[in-house]
Amino acid sequence: MADFNLMRELTTEAKTKIVLLVMDGLGGLPRTPSGLTELETANKPNLNRLAREGSLGLSVPVRLGITPGSGPAHLGLFGYDPVQYDIGRGVLEAFGVGVHVGAQDVAARGNFCTVDAQGLISDRRAGRIATEKSTPIVAKLARIEIKGVEIEVKPVKEYRFVVVFRGEGLLAEVEETDPQKVGAAPLPAVARTAAAQHTAEVVNQWVAEARKLIKDEPQANALTLRGFSSDPNLPKYREVYKLKAACVAVYPMYKGVSQLVGMDVQKFEGDKPGDEFAQVKKIWNDYDFFFVHIKPTDSRGEDGDFEGKVKVIESVDEALPALLDLKPDVLVVTGDHSTPAKLKSHSWHPVPLLLWAPATHMPDLAGEFGERACTQGGLGRFPATDLMPLALAHALRLERYGA
Amino acid sequence: MADFNLMRELTTEAKTKIVLLVMDGLGGLPRTPSGLTELETANKPNLNRLAREGSLGLSVPVRLGITPGSGPAHLGLFGYDPVQYDIGRGVLEAFGVGVHVGAQDVAARGNFCTVDAQGLISDRRAGRIATEKSTPIVAKLARIEIKGVEIEVKPVKEYRFVVVFRGEGLLAEVEETDPQKVGAAPLPAVARTAAAQHTAEVVNQWVAEARKLIKDEPQANALTLRGFSSDPNLPKYREVYKLKAACVAVYPMYKGVSQLVGMDVQKFEGDKPGDEFAQVKKIWNDYDFFFVHIKPTDSRGEDGDFEGKVKVIESVDEALPALLDLKPDVLVVTGDHSTPAKLKSHSWHPVPLLLWAPATHMPDLAGEFGERACTQGGLGRFPATDLMPLALAHALRLERYGA
Repeated sequence: MADFNLMRELTTEAKTKIVLLVMDGLGGLPRTPSGLTELETANKPNLNRLAREGSLGLSVPVRLGITPGSGPAHLGLFGYDPVQYDIGRGVLEAFGVGVHVGAQDVAARGNFCTVDAQGLISDRRAGRIATEKSTPIVAKLARIEIKGVEIEVKPVKEYRFVVVFRGEGLLAEVEETDPQKVGAAPLPAVARTAAAQHTAEVVNQWVAEARKLIKDEPQANALTLRGFSSDPNLPKYREVYKLKAACVAVYPMYKGVSQLVGMDVQKFEGDKPGDEFAQVKKIWNDYDFFFVHIKPTDSRGEDGDFEGKVKVIESVDEALPALLDLKPDVLVVTGDHSTPAKLKSHSWHPVPLLLWAPATHMPDLAGEFGERACTQGGLGRFPATDLMPLALAHALRLERYGA
Repeated sequence: MADFNLMRELTTEAKTKIVLLVMDGLGGLPRTPSGLTELETANKPNLNRLAREGSLGLSVPVRLGITPGSGPAHLGLFGYDPVQYDIGRGVLEAFGVGVHVGAQDVAARGNFCTVDAQGLISDRRAGRIATEKSTPIVAKLARIEIKGVEIEVKPVKEYRFVVVFRGEGLLAEVEETDPQKVGAAPLPAVARTAAAQHTAEVVNQWVAEARKLIKDEPQANALTLRGFSSDPNLPKYREVYKLKAACVAVYPMYKGVSQLVGMDVQKFEGDKPGDEFAQVKKIWNDYDFFFVHIKPTDSRGEDGDFEGKVKVIESVDEALPALLDLKPDVLVVTGDHSTPAKLKSHSWHPVPLLLWAPATHMPDLAGEFGERACTQGGLGRFPATDLMPLALAHALRLERYGA
């Protein structure tokens, strides 16, 4: 991973600008043995030009063979070994919807579910209830009071919400209550340590109250809690990299991870690549580093929608000139992990990566941006956590190590 | 890094000979997007033949993105992780000019500078005063006496000298006195720890005496001290690799690093590649391992002299047959880091590496020795610290690990 002590020692202020453009789940697979991947299929003249001028490589999100979730995958790209920095889902979701989680607070991600008359889960996602329907149910939960504990609940999307418990002596060492299958009842919260016993009791008391309030809901008549966690207090971008960093993302999770590493999360209108690039332009003079997150590549991959994913890539390529007009010193285009439409899920495959930094890059021999071209790229295959030092070097923001 | 315990366990005596030919700062960059690098441009029939017969790869000096100084870069090539073994400049320079630094001694690299009437630095390098002029000034400094401390000063080159303090209770934990900018006065030596307080006082007393002796010099009328350090007592080549190793180098720094790892530094006439290869021939029967260092590739790179760097590479290629006539079992040709003329400085780019070992190498598909050819090389990209195990293996000097 990025050696933060080395980074603290060697990073230097500069006027150069770095853009990290992440197409979520970018990496793909061909549908037939002789076929092309989503990225290889896409008509993407701008990305291909950048690939011809710059350097390609493959980024390994966590370890060879390991499929990451969105949180760990982004932490890796940001230089934080996700195995060392294990951030709970609760914190990620909470930050994503703007709920603060302090080091003393415990956040959990909540899922509404449907239980039958016997209390056994019949739908783990409450029929993917619409956000408009789940929001008033979450509002009901906000009424629950437990002595000595301040509680904040907030809807996320569809069947998902977050709950944060604040009070003396709360600890995140609590097992999730999701049995991970239908036909089983939600589990009670169980403390992993004696010290977390009180927290588990608070959680169980809250769940009992919640169940009473929602028992008559047609779909969301029960709930499970996962990812109990506190603010991990990660080293911040400004401290370790001397970068003033902005996050331009649409989805809560990515805003959450960015905030954890000290990026300023941007508010802006719209959710298209062009809207995101317009926001980058607006704040171009205020920041050194711009994390731009494109979600639908991953969503279409998860849907198994090969053509849809191709179209998302094409839409990013089409919007790209607006970003290039800003003349970034370093532009990295990559994904946080692969989401091949063929697999309809995240995967472990190394992720195509393009580094374009005209003042410092070594143009390599590839003719286009694609998975197979990246296997021949001059950057080789490297851990995602090495990306930040590499980007900083290409931005001439690292001093020489030793005489 | 090279696992020294594994090396101690597996290395075995043999009659094979290994040559490590280092062209300092070998790696380069093209000047135009479609252009060639210095190495790719050079007419180098011998190196190209070796590349076709042998294996290519890229060596990462310290970590991805990290630009090393000469000392750390060579330590890496020799198998010592330069982040773990952080050697001070004072020790490196002292060893380089043949001044011994024991574990109890403190060495510093000195720079003459020019200060104005207010004592503020107007030239940090004293106009790069010629060695012939600085030598008698250093001789003056040798007169300074401090009770209980033995002091040795020696000129290095131009404005540079070394000073070694020997005596009871001296510690290297002292901050440098170079303010690193003109318009500021040289700083007093400040102890980083309470235990080093005495050392800082000795240094400040010495500097005060020195300033009196040189105050009327037209250029070198003041000085700064950097890189306070003691002998790091590194594991030695003979102990970890079972190699009797010789260093054939012209510049002090490289002799210094070699001596720190237990190489015998050679004295010889001349400073051309042919002179260095002639010295290798002379001692061929006395050693197992030959580190041959070519400096001007780096110097021309730092000058931004693309064509000059090309010519240095060509001059090495031209002299190479004399080395090949010795029939080394393993010949490694590489650099310690990259110094692209385009950047006029050391850089972080991985370094082209050629391994030729006719009895054991896997010929790969490359047709020439160059950065881009190396990205396709069979050795792949690996940390510089892995080179020694690789070279020892190709010299059949490593036993099997386990049954």
